[in-house]
Amino acid sequence: MNKKELINQIKQKQSFLCIGLDTDITKIPQYLLKEDDPIFEFNKQIIDATKDLCVAYKPNIAFYETMGAKGWESLQKTIDYIPNEIFTIADAKRGDIGNTSKMYAKAFFETLNFDSITVAPYMGEDSVKPFLDSDNYRNDNKWVILLALTSNKGADDFQFFDNGEKKLFQQVLEQSKQWGNDENLMYVVGATRPEMLKEIRKIVPNSFLLVPGVGAQGGSLQEVCKYGLNNDVGLLVNSSRGIIYAGNDENFATSARNAALSIQTEMASLLSEIGN
Amino acid sequence: MNKKELINQIKQKQSFLCIGLDTDITKIPQYLLKEDDPIFEFNKQIIDATKDLCVAYKPNIAFYETMGAKGWESLQKTIDYIPNEIFTIADAKRGDIGNTSKMYAKAFFETLNFDSITVAPYMGEDSVKPFLDSDNYRNDNKWVILLALTSNKGADDFQFFDNGEKKLFQQVLEQSKQWGNDENLMYVVGATRPEMLKEIRKIVPNSFLLVPGVGAQGGSLQEVCKYGLNNDVGLLVNSSRGIIYAGNDENFATSARNAALSIQTEMASLLSEIGN
Repeated sequence: MNKKELINQIKQKQSFLCIGLDTDITKIPQYLLKEDDPIFEFNKQIIDATKDLCVAYKPNIAFYETMGAKGWESLQKTIDYIPNEIFTIADAKRGDIGNTSKMYAKAFFETLNFDSITVAPYMGEDSVKPFLDSDNYRNDNKWVILLALTSNKGADDFQFFDNGEKKLFQQVLEQSKQWGNDENLMYVVGATRPEMLKEIRKIVPNSFLLVPGVGAQGGSLQEVCKYGLNNDVGLLVNSSRGIIYAGNDENFATSARNAALSIQTEMASLLSEIGN
Repeated sequence: MNKKELINQIKQKQSFLCIGLDTDITKIPQYLLKEDDPIFEFNKQIIDATKDLCVAYKPNIAFYETMGAKGWESLQKTIDYIPNEIFTIADAKRGDIGNTSKMYAKAFFETLNFDSITVAPYMGEDSVKPFLDSDNYRNDNKWVILLALTSNKGADDFQFFDNGEKKLFQQVLEQSKQWGNDENLMYVVGATRPEMLKEIRKIVPNSFLLVPGVGAQGGSLQEVCKYGLNNDVGLLVNSSRGIIYAGNDENFATSARNAALSIQTEMASLLSEIGN
């Protein structure tokens, strides 16, 4: 999916909601366990109930890997089931030497056909470029979503490491602009530090930001929008547990829909304030 | 596997060789493609031919993920096939917020029963701790192998980011010492920068270092040993492509053995020089 198509989806649905499919076999309603593939069955019902309210789904790959090969089958079925007009994010936090990142790109962009993947920057340019460089991926409108400033407490440990002029996460933003552009590169910026969005927007004014941390992790949607919205909206705000585990009985999908609707309604209102 | 057992293996085999199982369906001998599971069949023959010469195997998870669910089956069979006395490393470069890292730990330490996993430090303490903290993992002698200074060109981009007192990779080493110890935490240090090993040994004198980059990436074993060996040996030196793709015909396993034997012989000689 390209940037224009994503923006159109956002305006049409009045939503920049991304739903995180952190599907955990120990947390889904017990009655689903009798299904052949409970993880996929859960995801399918969540997708059916929310697909008109969100513009992206983000399966968290760790949750599928705990199930081994069977988990990858559930993941494959899930990605195949998501409607084409919805942006898909492999939340995988990968990144390795060039020939290995190339294999991860193959796994997530070809074997699984995701639109995008989250990538960790520690290993630098040649660990990120394989996800961006291929003519195939460029033509197919594949995206890297690079970790910049994450939503967790541990972000303090290294992301604020300061060389006197800038902090590491600022360096990641600035340097990575040479590797891609706002048509194939987004950034992860946690909702738990909305005040930093102002600084981040100075460096990447036109880029989409994937913002986790609203909901279970405590971030505020209004604060995120105040500092993070740009002329193209430029935000994908993720909620995982707050939506998919809103209910835990046979009406779980309706509960998830209601939770998603509540966020989408707030988003529509915030978008109308800025004239979208 | 605990540290003492690992050291005993090294002394017994006169080897600190780790063999990287970067098994690529497009690079293995063509005649294996008629097998039900060519990836596992290749790994099996490599393991049979080299298990007396190395102390660790390191499957590179990216290569298995390109094959989807089938790749995870090959990976599961491979890890089950590796003899118990050989240390196993999931080269996965994972790292995410706490509840997600916990799921990765479950995937690699429980579902797949690896002894260790490589972890990227960008997200800080709470992204690494779930791999270390569980009483289970401590009792089971599971290890984190944290990226410090990697072997690729892109290591220059952020790992040398300098706050005036130290570089980022030095900060990673120093700070992570508070999260674990030399009984459950190792570090990745690339062979392509052997001169840095001297500095690194000042910070982590007793820790094991996993050293990739000898062979295809150009690092020298002698240089690595000169600066990296400690009283417990303290090194696992990895070779992947140089061993597993040493041959490409029906004698590929013998070719791999010869390549491994050549490195092990050099290692035995280096160990005898320091009286091990």
